[in-house]
Amino acid sequence: MSVHVAVSLRPDRGSPGADLADRLALSARRRGGGPDLLVEWMAACRERSPFEVARVPFDRLDGWRFARRSGDLVHRSGRFFSVQGVDVQTDYGGGAEWSQPIIDQPDRSILGILAREIDGVLHFLMQAKMEPGNVGTVQLSPTVQATTSNYQRAHNGGVAPYLEYFTEPGRARVMVDVLQSEQGSWFRGKRNRNVVMEVDGDVVPHEDFVWMTLGELYALLRRPNVVNMDARTVLSCLPLPADGAGDAGGFCAALGRSTSTSDDRALWSSLEVGSWLTGRKAAYALTTRQVPLRSVRGWTRTAGEIHHPSGRFFRIIGVDVRATNREVRHWCQPLLEPCGQGLVAFVVRRIEGVLHVLARADVRPGYRDVVELGPTVQCTPGNFAAAGERRPAFLDLVLSGGAAVRYDVLQSEEGGRFHRAVTRHMVVEVDGDFPLETPGDFAWVTLAQLKRLIGSSYQVNIEARSLVTCVHALTGAA
Amino acid sequence: MSVHVAVSLRPDRGSPGADLADRLALSARRRGGGPDLLVEWMAACRERSPFEVARVPFDRLDGWRFARRSGDLVHRSGRFFSVQGVDVQTDYGGGAEWSQPIIDQPDRSILGILAREIDGVLHFLMQAKMEPGNVGTVQLSPTVQATTSNYQRAHNGGVAPYLEYFTEPGRARVMVDVLQSEQGSWFRGKRNRNVVMEVDGDVVPHEDFVWMTLGELYALLRRPNVVNMDARTVLSCLPLPADGAGDAGGFCAALGRSTSTSDDRALWSSLEVGSWLTGRKAAYALTTRQVPLRSVRGWTRTAGEIHHPSGRFFRIIGVDVRATNREVRHWCQPLLEPCGQGLVAFVVRRIEGVLHVLARADVRPGYRDVVELGPTVQCTPGNFAAAGERRPAFLDLVLSGGAAVRYDVLQSEEGGRFHRAVTRHMVVEVDGDFPLETPGDFAWVTLAQLKRLIGSSYQVNIEARSLVTCVHALTGAA
Repeated sequence: MSVHVAVSLRPDRGSPGADLADRLALSARRRGGGPDLLVEWMAACRERSPFEVARVPFDRLDGWRFARRSGDLVHRSGRFFSVQGVDVQTDYGGGAEWSQPIIDQPDRSILGILAREIDGVLHFLMQAKMEPGNVGTVQLSPTVQATTSNYQRAHNGGVAPYLEYFTEPGRARVMVDVLQSEQGSWFRGKRNRNVVMEVDGDVVPHEDFVWMTLGELYALLRRPNVVNMDARTVLSCLPLPADGAGDAGGFCAALGRSTSTSDDRALWSSLEVGSWLTGRKAAYALTTRQVPLRSVRGWTRTAGEIHHPSGRFFRIIGVDVRATNREVRHWCQPLLEPCGQGLVAFVVRRIEGVLHVLARADVRPGYRDVVELGPTVQCTPGNFAAAGERRPAFLDLVLSGGAAVRYDVLQSEEGGRFHRAVTRHMVVEVDGDFPLETPGDFAWVTLAQLKRLIGSSYQVNIEARSLVTCVHALTGAA
Repeated sequence: MSVHVAVSLRPDRGSPGADLADRLALSARRRGGGPDLLVEWMAACRERSPFEVARVPFDRLDGWRFARRSGDLVHRSGRFFSVQGVDVQTDYGGGAEWSQPIIDQPDRSILGILAREIDGVLHFLMQAKMEPGNVGTVQLSPTVQATTSNYQRAHNGGVAPYLEYFTEPGRARVMVDVLQSEQGSWFRGKRNRNVVMEVDGDVVPHEDFVWMTLGELYALLRRPNVVNMDARTVLSCLPLPADGAGDAGGFCAALGRSTSTSDDRALWSSLEVGSWLTGRKAAYALTTRQVPLRSVRGWTRTAGEIHHPSGRFFRIIGVDVRATNREVRHWCQPLLEPCGQGLVAFVVRRIEGVLHVLARADVRPGYRDVVELGPTVQCTPGNFAAAGERRPAFLDLVLSGGAAVRYDVLQSEEGGRFHRAVTRHMVVEVDGDFPLETPGDFAWVTLAQLKRLIGSSYQVNIEARSLVTCVHALTGAA
């Protein structure tokens, strides 16, 4: 089946760029009835549809098996995803070589949010969606999270509601449509289509769906584990200025200038930022080779999980899921469970009144081109607890309290593949004494420059995109 | 060794965008002393350095061998490149499955052109460079064509002249710096860094190097096999408007508007073009698996070549090269020799006075993300000579004379890997009766939109980039 978003010949269009930015900014200023109402509504969704997740050993993982020759963990249909192995070799970080399990999911997923003006303000149709790995069971997700398997109905289940707006020509206008990467240490070259489509007519929300302004979404982003990763990445693609009004000279004003600023006020021009990123991609060799899961060195498979004896990295486990409002009411699946809580952090600094983010060239085996731009710090701090461990650059700065904490909220990775994967999201601001000179893998960029890079595929990693959305949630906040 | 292009903090910069476009346009208008002088200069370079290329069987290919287990054709150093196999499966074009040899070259090459103002006009330092596969032995190439192996001196040869401008910080200012793909049927995921650096001071050309304006380069692009593929792809990345002056209402005026036009005069907005391309990438499944060359099905290896018994596609051959002005004066290497002359063609049409190109979503096993935007027609016409063969869309239109031929020149693929690989480059214009509605894999785009896509990596294939450069050569021509 060919899936494509409609492009109509000569659609009725005004001046999409500036106009859209204004409309998004207006939506961001509308905070609505406050986050408590929405959290209550999500709780009601959760109660209406009880949902049980139980860990099971692999031999009770219905439909899944370890392939005879490769030992890969696969579904009997050959669909959905599989857990394979990868051998990695790189000269990054002084050089390293390792094997690991990795999730292979070569489908073409759509993460789609439907948008619509209600009383002149853009609203976004969000779903209270249960996923087996979710902290809190239900999180706010895009209107549609559909894999190829979903829309080809491999589930033998129903088709996801509203999918037609993203697959049938002429139903809606495109606002965002770009392929983006996912977690480069856990997925092999996985990509999702991040889409926002705007519709004109009335669209009635089904049960478990709600129309929200950006301002309402941002208020929820200041709470832990409410807005899911899929929603955060799609929102990061919106061409949205941050609102710095009412805060002249303050942090939010600097943030507002950072999203709206032209290159004139950026430390580096966009051409220079692009050249630096190209240079980082060309600087490192990264060789990855698909290998049978059976031959991954240094990992152990027991009846109940695949893990690394050091207790680090992640585990592959199996779960049995019973739900009442999914297309399929009972299923089993593997999940990847990270060992320890992750940390992603932006170190930010005002440079001549414009907020700049200290971005980092991040190398992961699952990336399609060696490097993507990542947060200043991205690691599992627990792995560096032992004395004498070489700690990632700026980790101590972020955790030490030596910088002003602007954002510090726990957010989840996607619960359809990851089990209780919680990542602490932080934004910390350093002052004018902090050096502008950076190590070679770091660069100061404005949010406008980050946004421009997000407009192309595979330039900004999912953790940095998630943080970009969280940064937006800071504007206008009390 | 880490190779990166310098980014200096707060370099002295004006308004790079518009200003650069003006400076490039000025350079394009300067036709200099005419192409004959330059062709004579190239002939002198050729004569100064005789260069012999002889086909040899694989067992006389010094330094190269077929690896014992895989049968891959490899260099004893493990460097340069290798010929491996790939199994391909796709649902594109009704579905297909095949095996083929493919070149694997996982290095980080630089294709770099040095630029400089001379008497207020931008000039580009071009090299008369010999490559073993070149038609005419010597072609005009970028200032630097350096592989990682080159700059790590795997050759045991000298370092390429001017390389320091592209690898040492602070030597020059970046004008272009973007990773681009190469031939997706012949290379596995190969990419080159396409770079243009501008230098301020005096730079004296070595023997075999010459400073040229864009206008001089364009004049040479109207001759066959003079400007090599590496130069054509780098030139395609320049943010350059085409000059439509002096031709009001004519083809060149429409072309000028196509490169300078904002979205307002484009049939589709850039957002819609991007969404269409994203949709094409998501529409097709493409699975490629690296396999030993030994196990490629349907191909035959003899003492002298690897070929397909049908006589189609390409051959892998070996050559012995003796030169006197290369870093290494004698070497052997494999080359890929295509069977039959290729054809790449843009079908163009004026839409409300603005030239639009009919671009095509092109699927190849070597692409990093399934689809890149390609020429309207890209094929080897000889493969479709037999009656009853299903011919590619628009092939007959291009060859039949049913459209006005604006450009029809033979150009070469890169002679360092490809043996006498000649591709006919055509631009044909259809009239206003030609339908604007297109098959799903085609889209009408302006040159400005193509340029914007070229600004991101891996969006526009090398054949389309080469044609974009040829189209520019049409402006202002007699």
